[in-house]
Amino acid sequence: MIRYPDGSSPQPKREKAIKRPRALSSANRGMNLEEDINISNQYYIDKDIAVITKRPTPINVVKVDYSRGAKITDAYFEKQSTTDYNGVFRGKYLDFEAKSTKLHTSFPLSNITAHQILHLQRVIKQGGIAFFIIRFEALDETYLLDASFVIEAFSGEKRKSIPYPDVKKNGHLIKKGFIPRLFYLEVVESVYF
Amino acid sequence: MIRYPDGSSPQPKREKAIKRPRALSSANRGMNLEEDINISNQYYIDKDIAVITKRPTPINVVKVDYSRGAKITDAYFEKQSTTDYNGVFRGKYLDFEAKSTKLHTSFPLSNITAHQILHLQRVIKQGGIAFFIIRFEALDETYLLDASFVIEAFSGEKRKSIPYPDVKKNGHLIKKGFIPRLFYLEVVESVYF
Repeated sequence: MIRYPDGSSPQPKREKAIKRPRALSSANRGMNLEEDINISNQYYIDKDIAVITKRPTPINVVKVDYSRGAKITDAYFEKQSTTDYNGVFRGKYLDFEAKSTKLHTSFPLSNITAHQILHLQRVIKQGGIAFFIIRFEALDETYLLDASFVIEAFSGEKRKSIPYPDVKKNGHLIKKGFIPRLFYLEVVESVYF
Repeated sequence: MIRYPDGSSPQPKREKAIKRPRALSSANRGMNLEEDINISNQYYIDKDIAVITKRPTPINVVKVDYSRGAKITDAYFEKQSTTDYNGVFRGKYLDFEAKSTKLHTSFPLSNITAHQILHLQRVIKQGGIAFFIIRFEALDETYLLDASFVIEAFSGEKRKSIPYPDVKKNGHLIKKGFIPRLFYLEVVESVYF
């Protein structure tokens, strides 16, 4: 798992033990959201449906040993100041951030940065399509939520999270499959086109 | 300067000593193309003209020492499989690669990868705007060249470079300034809008 220099991790901390509903399928339990999106993106690229890529994790390189084949010997992970994903779909610019939570009552805003919110605001101003893909791991549900809702929650009344019912009401459930894992562009198409 | 594990660098090798014309201004000699574009992009973002960002250099992280604040102790630079820059300008998706050469007779294709060509072909198919920003350092000239010309030169007749007169004829000279350093979006606007 990636950790930042302060020891925190990009995933929200588990606040209490989660009881998983017994009936829940565990088929995709091992896969995380990032892997699901990456595999879906590769499918969309291979099928000429869209070109959406993950921005590499920015790394601050402090020292490189050229005597050992340009081996980086001192470096640190940096927080992404934009979002994780962007690309083009039917001529339109897409930009989104993917986050999952182990909570099942709300989506915490703690691991979204002010930089990311500002970035998404700018994307919207430029006529781009901006959203979040939010997964509730305990419920095995993944939603597409327009960035405007998250921007409002983040900027507005100092809310620390978005309640699950609000995500369910304003977001759009993304169908899961084998390939692609997440049919998220089908949702983008129905919401934005 | 970034070097790949094999010891090569992302810049084309200088093939012979270049005699610089004496009359040439040396005002921006110290700045490289990447810095010029980054500063221009920041200006465009600040002025709400566009949101174009540089993809971080991908790094393959082999070992992280969590006992020392998530210090990366073993990692290697990877070649970018897409391009360096992408973003949104007036609703349109933009994707481009920036390359400079010390040669003054041609632009070498040796530091463009097949992956990058394929990526740009896919972007064009999706209706995105794809181009190269090419700088001839010895001439102090920077051109915007539509990706289609580079794709053709790369794929076609096993050419190793694009002659300078071809870049001059098919490309568009980018005006230089203080801020932005490169008025490249003005060229994008006149060419693609």
